[in-house]
Amino acid sequence: MARVLTPRAEDFPRWYQDLISKAEMADNGPVRGTMVIRPTGYAIWERMVSDLDARIKATGAENAYFPLFIPESYLKREAEHVEGFSPELAVVTHGGGKKLEEPVVVRPTSETVIGEFMAKWTQSYRDLPLLLNQWANVVRWEMRPRVFLRTSEFLWQEGHTAHADEQDARDYARRILHEVYEDFMVNVLAIPVTVGRKTNRERFAGATSTYTLEAQTGDGKALQMGTSHELGQNFAKAFDISFSAKEGGQQFAWTTSWGVSTRMVGGLIMVHGDDNGLRVPPKLAPIQAYVMVVKDGDGVAEATDRVLAELRAAGVRVQVNDRTDTPFGRRAVDAELKGYPIRIEIGPRDIAEGNVTIARRTDGSKTPVSVDGVTKAVLDALEADQKALYDQAVVARAAKTTDAATLDEAIEVAGSGFARIAWDKVGVDGEAKANQSAVSVRCL
Amino acid sequence: MARVLTPRAEDFPRWYQDLISKAEMADNGPVRGTMVIRPTGYAIWERMVSDLDARIKATGAENAYFPLFIPESYLKREAEHVEGFSPELAVVTHGGGKKLEEPVVVRPTSETVIGEFMAKWTQSYRDLPLLLNQWANVVRWEMRPRVFLRTSEFLWQEGHTAHADEQDARDYARRILHEVYEDFMVNVLAIPVTVGRKTNRERFAGATSTYTLEAQTGDGKALQMGTSHELGQNFAKAFDISFSAKEGGQQFAWTTSWGVSTRMVGGLIMVHGDDNGLRVPPKLAPIQAYVMVVKDGDGVAEATDRVLAELRAAGVRVQVNDRTDTPFGRRAVDAELKGYPIRIEIGPRDIAEGNVTIARRTDGSKTPVSVDGVTKAVLDALEADQKALYDQAVVARAAKTTDAATLDEAIEVAGSGFARIAWDKVGVDGEAKANQSAVSVRCL
Ligand SMILES: [Zn+2]
Ligand SMILES: [Zn+2]
Repeated sequence: MARVLTPRAEDFPRWYQDLISKAEMADNGPVRGTMVIRPTGYAIWERMVSDLDARIKATGAENAYFPLFIPESYLKREAEHVEGFSPELAVVTHGGGKKLEEPVVVRPTSETVIGEFMAKWTQSYRDLPLLLNQWANVVRWEMRPRVFLRTSEFLWQEGHTAHADEQDARDYARRILHEVYEDFMVNVLAIPVTVGRKTNRERFAGATSTYTLEAQTGDGKALQMGTSHELGQNFAKAFDISFSAKEGGQQFAWTTSWGVSTRMVGGLIMVHGDDNGLRVPPKLAPIQAYVMVVKDGDGVAEATDRVLAELRAAGVRVQVNDRTDTPFGRRAVDAELKGYPIRIEIGPRDIAEGNVTIARRTDGSKTPVSVDGVTKAVLDALEADQKALYDQAVVARAAKTTDAATLDEAIEVAGSGFARIAWDKVGVDGEAKANQSAVSVRCL
Repeated sequence: MARVLTPRAEDFPRWYQDLISKAEMADNGPVRGTMVIRPTGYAIWERMVSDLDARIKATGAENAYFPLFIPESYLKREAEHVEGFSPELAVVTHGGGKKLEEPVVVRPTSETVIGEFMAKWTQSYRDLPLLLNQWANVVRWEMRPRVFLRTSEFLWQEGHTAHADEQDARDYARRILHEVYEDFMVNVLAIPVTVGRKTNRERFAGATSTYTLEAQTGDGKALQMGTSHELGQNFAKAFDISFSAKEGGQQFAWTTSWGVSTRMVGGLIMVHGDDNGLRVPPKLAPIQAYVMVVKDGDGVAEATDRVLAELRAAGVRVQVNDRTDTPFGRRAVDAELKGYPIRIEIGPRDIAEGNVTIARRTDGSKTPVSVDGVTKAVLDALEADQKALYDQAVVARAAKTTDAATLDEAIEVAGSGFARIAWDKVGVDGEAKANQSAVSVRCL
């Protein structure tokens, strides 16, 4: 079989680009650094959104929507903040057919606007906790764009909450970290993430603690999949988010912020993809079972209808492909590329014996199964393959994680994987030294 | 009771603004013409999105995401098109810390980009129909903004489809019109919409037919709730969306486009709102039953838990308010403003007799109901009130619709309602005359 993608071992970044394009995940947009998310890729993002959204709501947070445009003056308010973003900003200077009196910035985050409104909506302890979340597009001008990983426009979720005391804010930031993000990544994305705190050097400006979830990609690199910040009272002081306390007197709130983005789609590809394409974990997969008519013939249509109906009734997300005007081989390669967990191939030869073929994307196996047994076989395979993908990722990460005794050793190892080292062997000076070798301390 | 809102009869636009603000639906954003959609308003939009999204997917369409930024040159390509938008465009001239070589426009619609990519993705008849939809924010600079109805940034859905022949495109545009939009508006929003074609004068540039759905607001005005366009081969020719036909030869596709926006939230308020606030139809309502603890006392907590559990088990969307540290009257006014269909008031006095009070927002009635009977009473009331809201809107529209015998009569009547008149009494000249009197022909 002709090779479809550049093999990962040959050139990992090229493999990634090939996959994005041939699996029809995304295209580059006409403006440099932007992307067109095609239906195959967008359906994966939608599934991420709907699962995470339910978890976020279960913590009590509510969704809201803040404007795309932010007055330039807002971003000058908090100096520390602007320095981090300034070269990343897209600035609108013309609107309504003329030059604007004050330019407006396309939001790089909604943080400043949300801070303004949180201050307005927080008057009394009765208004707390104030738990807000937003799903939206944001723009950070990107000089070296890579689809899904670093794009000038991306889709994300940003949560901002205000609490009456420090413990409540801390508990909430950790609840988001573990119950929302970590549990989702481990149990739905089947990605083992390393969860911990960032060093002072790496943490978010204004945060008192930044928690991170780091995945290891197929080439041994770390990819930040999400963050959750405790902001202490820093943010509340900058935006004057204060309230009359239950016990009397005016106090500043304790706030948190947290987010994940379309970068997770890139992470998913880089963790689970193989040389034949993507492998989507069953729990996430928009299409779990892809029913392919190999060729028309006696009993094929009947078997197809029956299999579809039974799988749907069992709650399996199915799609049928009966485009027999396209060669079967081409359709099968396309299904492999897109990573549907299970393919059910139905053709006259198998059907004559009462069988269909079940092809599992995770291990590449192909097994004949009687039409009667399809639903059970599919349900079993979906469950097993969800676990198998996670287990494989754990093994791959272990193979590329080395315990290092000294800082120099850790720096060397980090060229092709993770190094695990005691923080007291690194310290602030060691971290600076590691950074000079393009190695970062990802997680404590 | 002190009046909470300006009465509709006194000043309808003012009533609308009061309601938006006091029901915490939205705030004005810091950049003129933008809005902050607060959780109460956003939850309504989310319910609209999720219902419509399922309907759109049931037609076979897939969601995708196209970039926020469009090269300025794209909008110059189709001259007819640009003239319509030019003063409405927001233009980004700076990005990455410097002036851009080519300015980019913030999408007023994604039509041009989607056209480009549809051309790329459409090669053969096998690629058709190509059914795409996008949920996104768009920007059209607005000189006279009104929250939800006309804002510089709004949220919407835009569908774009390409078909192999005219009949398929026509059928699809009408399927969206009736099965997706009309059925949703009538059966979920409880809004009687007048559905029909636009005149040549009013139709979308480039369309061969524009279908519209028009609601009548509480002050007798028409509000366009959605449109579906047949574009013939005009759009395909402009973007070179062509394909090799089954019978051989290259052909241009037949396309459609269709959309609804956050304006629907404004329409909902203007159709169903009354002098006490919003009334949300039960099928749409994010919160269908609002369980309010009037005051703590013997048996109150137990009854509350039981009512909540039983309603949840029956599939009712419930929320509890047990903030007895806030006066009950204030909480009840707030619940009226936000328009929860049912309030269940639980206090010690009623509970002593085994009862709770069920307050229905639609007719303002308050009835004691035994704790045993709550779930049935709520389910019955939700069903009845969905119908009652629709029926009331039908009656209100009929009261403000007059059959006119002549054009002059129609123009006069249209000052305070709808005029129904035979098109042969209007014609192209009559339409121009009506327009001079600020009356438009909305629907054929
Ligand atoms: Zn954990
Ligand atoms: Zn109809």
